Amino acid sequence: VSVPAPRGIRVEVPVQRTAYDVIVRPGVLDELHSFLPPASRYVVITDHHVAPLHGARVLDALRGHGLTADLLDFTAGEANKTRSTWTQLTDRLLGLGAGRDACVIALGGGVVGDLACLVAATYMRGLPVVQVPTTLLAMVDAAVGGKTGVDVEHGKNLVGVFHHPHAVIADPLVLNTLPPQQLRAGLAEAVKHGAILDAAHFDWIHDNAQRLLSLDPEAVSALVTRSVELKGSVVAEDPREHGRRVLLNFGHTVGHALELCSGYTLLHGFAVAAGLRAEARAGELAGITADGTADRVTSLLRACELPLSVPGLDADRVLDGMRMDKKTRAAAQRVVLLAVIGRCARTDDGKWTHALPRHVLRQAVQEVIRDRDNV
Amino acid sequence: VSVPAPRGIRVEVPVQRTAYDVIVRPGVLDELHSFLPPASRYVVITDHHVAPLHGARVLDALRGHGLTADLLDFTAGEANKTRSTWTQLTDRLLGLGAGRDACVIALGGGVVGDLACLVAATYMRGLPVVQVPTTLLAMVDAAVGGKTGVDVEHGKNLVGVFHHPHAVIADPLVLNTLPPQQLRAGLAEAVKHGAILDAAHFDWIHDNAQRLLSLDPEAVSALVTRSVELKGSVVAEDPREHGRRVLLNFGHTVGHALELCSGYTLLHGFAVAAGLRAEARAGELAGITADGTADRVTSLLRACELPLSVPGLDADRVLDGMRMDKKTRAAAQRVVLLAVIGRCARTDDGKWTHALPRHVLRQAVQEVIRDRDNV
Repeated sequence: VSVPAPRGIRVEVPVQRTAYDVIVRPGVLDELHSFLPPASRYVVITDHHVAPLHGARVLDALRGHGLTADLLDFTAGEANKTRSTWTQLTDRLLGLGAGRDACVIALGGGVVGDLACLVAATYMRGLPVVQVPTTLLAMVDAAVGGKTGVDVEHGKNLVGVFHHPHAVIADPLVLNTLPPQQLRAGLAEAVKHGAILDAAHFDWIHDNAQRLLSLDPEAVSALVTRSVELKGSVVAEDPREHGRRVLLNFGHTVGHALELCSGYTLLHGFAVAAGLRAEARAGELAGITADGTADRVTSLLRACELPLSVPGLDADRVLDGMRMDKKTRAAAQRVVLLAVIGRCARTDDGKWTHALPRHVLRQAVQEVIRDRDNV
Repeated sequence: VSVPAPRGIRVEVPVQRTAYDVIVRPGVLDELHSFLPPASRYVVITDHHVAPLHGARVLDALRGHGLTADLLDFTAGEANKTRSTWTQLTDRLLGLGAGRDACVIALGGGVVGDLACLVAATYMRGLPVVQVPTTLLAMVDAAVGGKTGVDVEHGKNLVGVFHHPHAVIADPLVLNTLPPQQLRAGLAEAVKHGAILDAAHFDWIHDNAQRLLSLDPEAVSALVTRSVELKGSVVAEDPREHGRRVLLNFGHTVGHALELCSGYTLLHGFAVAAGLRAEARAGELAGITADGTADRVTSLLRACELPLSVPGLDADRVLDGMRMDKKTRAAAQRVVLLAVIGRCARTDDGKWTHALPRHVLRQAVQEVIRDRDNV
């Protein structure tokens, strides 16, 4: 029997959506309808904290514009960012009769965004989603980049997909209902953006920390806008985190381990703040980061009224916790390190992460788990 | 307070993978290793029917080439294509310690492909997957197009994402272990490709039906190659099924309803065969499809030794079942219709689906649920 010569059939997969807009403006929530894609119905997914604060307003506004809109909420908190909640939300969406021409609106902080976007991404192979972040952390960080996910027993965010939003609508005025510590937690990610990518942004946050903490809408808008630009530029280069996007993990290798060791009682932004300090310090100890950099990070975090340390943890447990980080690709612990404020260091062979000896990381971690903020 | 002027920050999302190869060749399974992407480990996901037939061979071959490889299997059958099995497979993958640099190999038929690709797509936001279809249906249809999914109480494939494979490796020789009725079921989708897109393919299947049914490797390779080319060309134009990809649903509106009404005891390919007949006939009744087309479809299905009818169902229940089809975007039942063999009909306003009155669909359905194959 003669058989055909070896050959492959090439299947092309062009892309539909290649860009989306992030709208940052005080009061823009009232114009949400004008940023929505056409859809047969809109389903707002939110949690039980955000629903009473902003849910009715959003729902009424959509219905006022003649749109079919419903609201699904779930019990707030990272503990509910699970496959079980995802299943329930999906089934409720099916129960509403939503088809493939529906649109999800993710109204809330990072947990809502991660979960609602995963529901949208996996519903009939993908509904469009408009993200309406209601925390500073979600505005500067979580709502941009297309990451969705839920936590499982093995770790956080281990199940999820990339699903980029149709648009992100960030209204600084909604932050007026945010608890002060959540506001400060959000600043930690903005500090990170400055530290890894833009010294001017870093310095600007320092100069405007009090305006930001008092929720001056102009200052908050400027902060969110610049952070989104910075994060967006990295995401654009590397949407699936195979390369330079890893820079956004600065502060997070230690930060995630601190969260893990705290039993996730620590606010993400607070863990990141300590992580930023530790990883800046680790870079100095390794001779890679310019001396004085960790002090500048510490000084800015203090200006943002962020806690500088996470007392009561064991350094070795924190180090062991890093191994659970899904970003770990090899046995050696690799960490993003700064060269100076505003620029990350690359290895001689061009990598964005550096393998650090355990004792260096241990010393740096030790400095952020002291009993007191003795810096 | 002055606020910044309304503005949006544009976030670009470039694409990583825009094409993949489908390799169709007798014996190619022995060269699987040469088509894999680099990965720290390979995890073969399959079911308990396929595992003893091909699992050990694939695993040994990978390990023989120095690759780290494991096999996860689950209980075969559409009834297990659920979120629960997805959860279990994900947790077992986590238990193996697979990181983001792992690669999934989906070894099996459509159920394995749908499930394994969904596991890969949602594992740490996406692992690459190589599909190794082991049924004719999966080779000509399921393995190409990037659809993943599981069934839920509300219906089939309602939860899933698009996740295109790194490559598809189709070895006609693995079909030697396939039950004959599964082989015939696979031919139904190939008949569909000819009917909607290529009269020459349609006629070629007729002329080669006996070679195909006796698993002549050359004939099977040619069938799979042409079907993949045809399906690939449609997927390339419309990867997310917003437009012309809907043509691939020809025969499936009725087919899915027949499956539903049979309690999913009917083989998908058998339901599609009856669906192809019914929808060709419906088009004739509506004056859209050329007279004689349904007879040509019937004649080819008979040559492929496919059952021509699905006795014992109630026509009205079948019609009601169509409403559950997630492709339904409106109250009226819209169906893809042929103009002639090899070409679909468009509506006057350019749509690929036609709204059909219930009585027309009812009559066409009636003809494929008669007690006997009286055609």
